[in-house]
Amino acid sequence: MKLLELVNKRYSCRNYQSRSVEKEKLEYILECVRLAPSAVNRQPWCFHIVTGAEEKERLQKCYDREWFKTAPMYIVASILHDREWIRGDGKPHGDIDIAIAVEHLCLAATEQGLGTCWICNFDAARCKELLTLPSDEEPAVIIPVGYAADEARPKCRKSIGEIVK
Amino acid sequence: MKLLELVNKRYSCRNYQSRSVEKEKLEYILECVRLAPSAVNRQPWCFHIVTGAEEKERLQKCYDREWFKTAPMYIVASILHDREWIRGDGKPHGDIDIAIAVEHLCLAATEQGLGTCWICNFDAARCKELLTLPSDEEPAVIIPVGYAADEARPKCRKSIGEIVK
Repeated sequence: MKLLELVNKRYSCRNYQSRSVEKEKLEYILECVRLAPSAVNRQPWCFHIVTGAEEKERLQKCYDREWFKTAPMYIVASILHDREWIRGDGKPHGDIDIAIAVEHLCLAATEQGLGTCWICNFDAARCKELLTLPSDEEPAVIIPVGYAADEARPKCRKSIGEIVK
Repeated sequence: MKLLELVNKRYSCRNYQSRSVEKEKLEYILECVRLAPSAVNRQPWCFHIVTGAEEKERLQKCYDREWFKTAPMYIVASILHDREWIRGDGKPHGDIDIAIAVEHLCLAATEQGLGTCWICNFDAARCKELLTLPSDEEPAVIIPVGYAADEARPKCRKSIGEIVK
C-alpha cells in the first residue's frame, strides 16, 4: 500500500470488535515502532501492552469513555525522561521522539487492518500511578488497538496553501 | 512498499546530490504531511519550503555543518503555539503534533526515493529571526530533502524486550 493511502486510511477509531489482535500482527507493529528514529538515537521510550481484564479496567479509570472500553488491548507509550535528549537551549525532545514512534504504531496497525486512536486527553498523573511507573517515566499517549467496529469518517484538514509557505 | 520496509529504508542522510526535487514528488510528500493527525485536529503547524540560494544560505547560519549545505532544499516545520492544544494539566501538544507530521514527511520522501534528516539540534532562536517568523511560531525541525549522495547505515536500536513491557 502506498504511504498516502495508508495515511488516508488511518483514522481515530472509537468503537472496537471484541476479537483479539493476532500475535504476529502485534509483533509487526512493534517492529515498526522499534525502528523509529529519535533525537541522538536515545530511544527514550517504553511501551506497555495492556491486555489483561484487570489491568485494562484499571487503565480505563484514567480515560472515562464508554467506547474506550470496547478495545481488546491498549498500548501505553511513555517517555523515559532520564534518557531523553535535551537541546542546548533547554528544549527537551521526549515528546517529539515518542510521537514519531507512536505514529509508526498507528500506521503499522492500519496496514494490518486494525484500528487505533491517539489518546492524549487522559489523566496522566493517575495513569502513572495506576501502572506504578517509576518517577522518570511519563505516560504520553494511550493507543487502543483492535478491529474496528465503526467506519472511517472523511478527513477535515487545512489545504496545502494554508500550511505551506 | 510495506511500511516496515519504508521504516527500515529511512535513515539520516548527511550528503546530497545537487539535483533538485521534482515538483510532483514534493506535492506527494506535502499531501502526506497535510493529512497527519493532531490533537483535537488543531493542525498547529506551518511548513516553510526553502529553495532559493539566498534563503538557503541564511538558514545554514543556524546549523553550521558542511554536509547540510549539500541539500538542494530544506523544509522548516514550525509549531503555531497560538493554535496548539493544551491538556487540562497544562501539557502542550505542539511538539507531539509537529513530530507526527514531520515523520509523515520523512517516510513519504523515502518512498519517493529521496533522502532526509531530522535536524533538531539547530539554533532555533536564530532560525526564527532569520526567517522572520511571528512571535507565536516556533521552528521545531529542519528537514533537508534531496537525492542521497551517501548510503544508509545499519540501524542500531534497542531490542523489543528492552522497550516493551
